[in-house]
Amino acid sequence: MSNEGPRRGLMLALSSPSGAGKSTLARRLIADDAAFVLSVSATTRNPRPGEVDGREYHFMSRETFEAEADRGAFLEWARVFDHYYGTPKAPVDAALAEGRDVLFDVDWQGARALRAAAEEDVVGVFLLPPSIEELERRLRARAQDGEDVIAKRMARSADEISHWAEYDYVLVNRDLDVTLSRIKAIVAVERMKRQRQIWMPDFIDGLLAR
Amino acid sequence: MSNEGPRRGLMLALSSPSGAGKSTLARRLIADDAAFVLSVSATTRNPRPGEVDGREYHFMSRETFEAEADRGAFLEWARVFDHYYGTPKAPVDAALAEGRDVLFDVDWQGARALRAAAEEDVVGVFLLPPSIEELERRLRARAQDGEDVIAKRMARSADEISHWAEYDYVLVNRDLDVTLSRIKAIVAVERMKRQRQIWMPDFIDGLLAR
Repeated sequence: MSNEGPRRGLMLALSSPSGAGKSTLARRLIADDAAFVLSVSATTRNPRPGEVDGREYHFMSRETFEAEADRGAFLEWARVFDHYYGTPKAPVDAALAEGRDVLFDVDWQGARALRAAAEEDVVGVFLLPPSIEELERRLRARAQDGEDVIAKRMARSADEISHWAEYDYVLVNRDLDVTLSRIKAIVAVERMKRQRQIWMPDFIDGLLAR
Repeated sequence: MSNEGPRRGLMLALSSPSGAGKSTLARRLIADDAAFVLSVSATTRNPRPGEVDGREYHFMSRETFEAEADRGAFLEWARVFDHYYGTPKAPVDAALAEGRDVLFDVDWQGARALRAAAEEDVVGVFLLPPSIEELERRLRARAQDGEDVIAKRMARSADEISHWAEYDYVLVNRDLDVTLSRIKAIVAVERMKRQRQIWMPDFIDGLLAR
């Protein structure tokens, strides 16, 4: 949209309660927009069946994780029960410097940690279900879980939703295509923001030099 | 773009050195988008030939202006040499509450005063000329002014440009249609911002009430 010169990439933190369409939208955004890369977290937990190292997570031992954390290799990291989770810093730094954008599929705690680490770069988008009934229907359609598992997920969803006001944009995901086009519009405009147009100081210097 | 419920309007502060296309763009934006109203300032200076009360300015006596200022009727006001200039507050408040947007054709001092008065509501857009030569060409094409007047205007332009970094978006106005469509994209996305979607707290309450 603005092709005057190089821009700094942005960090899109996408959150939602599970069942609100976040993963589908993240996948479509990555597929449609070559400027986007998906951030892959590091973790010390074991891979689950079907998970591929470097795709779902970078799986590593506790020793490796702690050494990486010590040398400042994570943008943010946290311990959740018995395991560590962290966001590798180098690929994010490289992407932003090249004018590529990094998509983070994160919960409210992850989004908050990213904001704390890189406030200026982060654009937060929160997705809401049209209704709680619809969210529950999507959660039930997903798997043959027991009532207690469903109830636990619904409680976690309510907790996630309660953090909606920490995001820059909050979208009700009634229709995937509409929501995707809204996210694309947000990204197009956020890319135009003054602080991301890194060619501009030189351009201004040129204007004022005469 | 987001029709879930009522929104709070925004204040678009549009600035540029004279000759960069600001007035033309402001006029086209007002003409194309019925949600926009133009803010008309109050002043104690006398109308110039062709100026209409309530169109270019609300012309008023010094006594009236001071009384209005005393009762808090201005969002911001300033004294410039012998005259007062102010932004009437009531029409702005009414527009924002109705979900209409207010366009301010202002210099950097005006934009700064608006930000100080209503930070959350203001979106700042600064327009740059493609080059200083082009700016000078436009200033010369405009009127048969003497070299000293041209030189004074160029110095004022440089001063105005030096405040570019105070704005959210900075656009190089090479082509009026392109610039207009960029401003419209910015406005469409800024309208979607969480804090302007005033129906959302109730919607969230409804989601979480079940």
